[in-house]
Amino acid sequence: MSRRSILDWLFGKRISTLREEQHQIGPLAGVPVLGLDALSSAAYGPEAALTLLLPLSALGLSYIVPLSAVIIAILLCVYFSYRQTIAAYPGGGGSYTVAKENLGPRFGLFGGAALALDYVLNVAVGISAGVGALVSAMPRLLPHTLGLCLAILAVLTIVNLRGIRESGLVFMFPTYGFVITLGAVVVMGVVQSVASGGHPEPVVPPPALPAPVQAVGAWILMRAFASGCTAMTGVEAVSNAVPIFREPTVLSAQRTLTAIVAILAALLGGIAYLAHAYGIGATEPGQVGYQSVLSMLVGAVVGRGVFYYLTIAAIVAVLAFSANTSFADFPRLCRILAVDQFLPGSFAVRGRRLVFSQGILLLAVLSGVLLIAFGGITDRLIPLFAIGAFLAFTLSQAGMVQHWRRVRDHQPVYALLINAVGALATGITLVVVAVSKFAEGAWVSVAVIPLLVLLFARINKHYRSVAAQIETIAPLEMPPPQPPIAVLAAGSWNKMTQHGLKFALRLSPDVYVVQVKTETDNTEDLSDNWELLIANPAHAAHIPQPKLVILPSNYRQFFKPFLDFVLKLSSDNPKRDIVVVIPDLVMNHWYESILHNNRGAFLRTILRVRCPSRVVVVNTPYHLE
Amino acid sequence: MSRRSILDWLFGKRISTLREEQHQIGPLAGVPVLGLDALSSAAYGPEAALTLLLPLSALGLSYIVPLSAVIIAILLCVYFSYRQTIAAYPGGGGSYTVAKENLGPRFGLFGGAALALDYVLNVAVGISAGVGALVSAMPRLLPHTLGLCLAILAVLTIVNLRGIRESGLVFMFPTYGFVITLGAVVVMGVVQSVASGGHPEPVVPPPALPAPVQAVGAWILMRAFASGCTAMTGVEAVSNAVPIFREPTVLSAQRTLTAIVAILAALLGGIAYLAHAYGIGATEPGQVGYQSVLSMLVGAVVGRGVFYYLTIAAIVAVLAFSANTSFADFPRLCRILAVDQFLPGSFAVRGRRLVFSQGILLLAVLSGVLLIAFGGITDRLIPLFAIGAFLAFTLSQAGMVQHWRRVRDHQPVYALLINAVGALATGITLVVVAVSKFAEGAWVSVAVIPLLVLLFARINKHYRSVAAQIETIAPLEMPPPQPPIAVLAAGSWNKMTQHGLKFALRLSPDVYVVQVKTETDNTEDLSDNWELLIANPAHAAHIPQPKLVILPSNYRQFFKPFLDFVLKLSSDNPKRDIVVVIPDLVMNHWYESILHNNRGAFLRTILRVRCPSRVVVVNTPYHLE
Repeated sequence: MSRRSILDWLFGKRISTLREEQHQIGPLAGVPVLGLDALSSAAYGPEAALTLLLPLSALGLSYIVPLSAVIIAILLCVYFSYRQTIAAYPGGGGSYTVAKENLGPRFGLFGGAALALDYVLNVAVGISAGVGALVSAMPRLLPHTLGLCLAILAVLTIVNLRGIRESGLVFMFPTYGFVITLGAVVVMGVVQSVASGGHPEPVVPPPALPAPVQAVGAWILMRAFASGCTAMTGVEAVSNAVPIFREPTVLSAQRTLTAIVAILAALLGGIAYLAHAYGIGATEPGQVGYQSVLSMLVGAVVGRGVFYYLTIAAIVAVLAFSANTSFADFPRLCRILAVDQFLPGSFAVRGRRLVFSQGILLLAVLSGVLLIAFGGITDRLIPLFAIGAFLAFTLSQAGMVQHWRRVRDHQPVYALLINAVGALATGITLVVVAVSKFAEGAWVSVAVIPLLVLLFARINKHYRSVAAQIETIAPLEMPPPQPPIAVLAAGSWNKMTQHGLKFALRLSPDVYVVQVKTETDNTEDLSDNWELLIANPAHAAHIPQPKLVILPSNYRQFFKPFLDFVLKLSSDNPKRDIVVVIPDLVMNHWYESILHNNRGAFLRTILRVRCPSRVVVVNTPYHLE
Repeated sequence: MSRRSILDWLFGKRISTLREEQHQIGPLAGVPVLGLDALSSAAYGPEAALTLLLPLSALGLSYIVPLSAVIIAILLCVYFSYRQTIAAYPGGGGSYTVAKENLGPRFGLFGGAALALDYVLNVAVGISAGVGALVSAMPRLLPHTLGLCLAILAVLTIVNLRGIRESGLVFMFPTYGFVITLGAVVVMGVVQSVASGGHPEPVVPPPALPAPVQAVGAWILMRAFASGCTAMTGVEAVSNAVPIFREPTVLSAQRTLTAIVAILAALLGGIAYLAHAYGIGATEPGQVGYQSVLSMLVGAVVGRGVFYYLTIAAIVAVLAFSANTSFADFPRLCRILAVDQFLPGSFAVRGRRLVFSQGILLLAVLSGVLLIAFGGITDRLIPLFAIGAFLAFTLSQAGMVQHWRRVRDHQPVYALLINAVGALATGITLVVVAVSKFAEGAWVSVAVIPLLVLLFARINKHYRSVAAQIETIAPLEMPPPQPPIAVLAAGSWNKMTQHGLKFALRLSPDVYVVQVKTETDNTEDLSDNWELLIANPAHAAHIPQPKLVILPSNYRQFFKPFLDFVLKLSSDNPKRDIVVVIPDLVMNHWYESILHNNRGAFLRTILRVRCPSRVVVVNTPYHLE
């Protein structure tokens, strides 16, 4: 297969810009593309909260329902906020855009940096959580943890490079499998629970709750609440990627968000209710007898049959592929930052399948490095994760509050109130998370986010400085009529040198043939046969004689004598262009060029940096058979 | 410090080719430069033979003197052979040259490959043996074994890059320290032994010999002989490097060789005699109570005083620096191979200090890789080592036999006989070593040497093919008078584009300004202000109008539309040069170029490979402040 057909096979054929509409998606594909992160939260949010309530034993269980109610209420605030954000920013309005437009560019960069960090962490943490669940089910896969992580990363990267629609199709199966199986368990559990008057009989009883070791206090409830709030991460994904939806774009995006939040809220509420009804608490992670809350819950409701394993498999798949949301959003964030010149412009270039390929590749490389550095076990990265998510939430909601204050006349006041409540709640959560997890690693995020902001600012400063230096609206000034002076870098007399000299003679009446004689040149002096080979034919054709210059080099240097000659020639002829002609042998295979000294390439680099703008370099290619 | 002054400080100032004579050496510096490998053999040759005689106990000791006598006899054969080789090949006559001239090029390549492999192994094994002796004396250095090895490698590399004379001066101290201290021990021992009628009283008695576990047999004696023969490695070093000596060159080289062989023979004979007289056998390496033969011998003769530690320190230094011989010879071998076009020509280029810097660096890199791969403990490489050494010896001596047969009329017949005996002895040793150490690793050498020969042959074939394709003795044909067509790769209108366009207009009356419109270009269409910015000024200056070409790119490709345009232009104008002008922004720092898409560099590469030879690329540099 040729290189092109391999690329076509792996990533799909190039798609024309004109066919963009055919590659946009609707809500059905939107949920797998943008909802996997949020939906997978149902698998770990309740677990995280219950783990913190563990010291309270059965009493803790009675708090899980009200805590979940508060979380779902905030989730609905966030939902209404982002619904409105989507309508207000149909070009894609993540925290970066909303904060920039409403709070100022510096806040926007903080939002962008927080999101960028989170998307990278989400890929590493999501994949490693899925693989972790898989290897705990099949312990003989344990030695291959890192390999499995990288394989999943590769699959995600390739599927996303193939396009948005393709990634929606591929991940539809695990996503809806998860929603249907876990949804069925929740419905069955609730029905049984209600039918039994609130005290259902578990099919497989969960382990007995340990004795309480701590009294209820505000701090423990607050921390449980903060941990449970991780269930909300990923909700903002849709608002960032509005343009991937087909017409009516805003409506499609809002429907997708509605579907994601509705499913998530139902699952969260159902799980909390069932945990209380069946008496299921968390077990100590890393201890013998550890079992996830969802595993106990599914076992209690439907027993350990085929359906149990189907549900657990769907949960594992959704965890592993929850990174897909980052793959949809991170490249779009990079694109917006690139358009605003905070990142190199190539991040705004759509690749062969209309996705921002460079952003996808950068995300794959960064998260791959994290996975390798942590050996595929990224638990220690989770505390880093929450800071970014809640900083982005808070900035976005605060931005929306400001937005409503500006457009107050046209909007009902409850819109502002919803966002204000959301901003307050997520802001408090941010502070709680930062304080309680600071020593566990959240300090890394606190340090990295400002550094990223600084990097963005420096990049922007560079681009603005370059633009200021090269911008002009002046019309062309007219060039002087003189032809350039040509300088040929010559070795021995061969077809390659001849080809270069012919080009130089066609270009200019003033040609210098320059040979640097270092001791190791076994090449003969060009002066030996100068008359015969060059001077006489030039005379016969009535063209001006080229001038031979032999530069001695007692210190066996090649570049310095040549550079000095060109610099002198340039200062002696301050009004003329100087074209340095370097004969260049083109090999058939790249590895053959290892065997040839790359003086030409070095010479070009040195002349480019050291000579004035009037000196240009031409390589005259001579192709071998 | 500037980059230049750092280089000057580390490697010394550049030396002019004209001052070459001042940097040649005489015999006094020749012994440290070329003799360290051979002299260090005295430290491990007898030990290797005695280790194999270990199962014979005291009876083995009675064989060490006759075995050593045979080895010294062969050493003298080899000595006379190389004395004559030096006279016959004053340009440097290692195994490669002698075998090539007398047996044919293929044999020469085998000799060259064997030597090249050995020089690399010698560096790794020598340094690691020295560091091994050091850390066994100071066990707390053990964790730093690899670091010490690499530090010594760095010192050897830098000293050798500073020049031949510098390396002679630096290593004179440990070399003559070793000769004086160990020589004094041998002389004192022999005097005491003779004075006591052959039964001297040891100051520190060596450990008692174990009971014999094996009877004498031809196989064990042959293997002991083969191991003892490693004492001869490094003897050919002088013949390879004759041109480093000052006038009278041949005489200086021969004197150096004489000094090295005389010292080596005296040490070998003395050590063998004393081992027998004092009853010193080898101890089992790696076992508790292991002590080197030389350590026991020095202790027996002078006791464990200051002089003991001085002598042992000198032995350790000579082992560690024995690699210096490779640093003197390997670059010269690479140079000869490069001159014959079996390696890239840059190996024949002398660096700032008149040494072949590329060969030195290649040797440092290859042996550094070996040291790192084996963690600084290279015992397992020793069996690889012997094959190359004795293959080179055998080829060299067989070549000299052929040499004498050709010039028989002018030379006494014993010259041929000496070489024939040497060739036979080293040939037998080669077979014995290959057979007895095959499974231990000698098979690697047996496999690697032919592969190296194949590589050399392939490189040579490539160079000959290129030379045949470009060589010409035809005079210049006259170029057609037409000026080139210029094609400007344009983005938006700025000073950089303007600079490129001005160059193009000075070059040619036919200028195409080509703009590729991919969707992501935020740059405005050049046609918007074409009249104002370009067409009107051109008209006013009475120069031909440049033509604007806007290429649409529905697949967001930049290079393909541009390449297709140039290819079409080239086939429409089969007689004219096409100069593609690419405006080029020159940054002040290399890292800034990361932030700019490197379309220019890619475009140049693509055009160079895909277009006919008439199409050349010019980058017009625009310098930022």
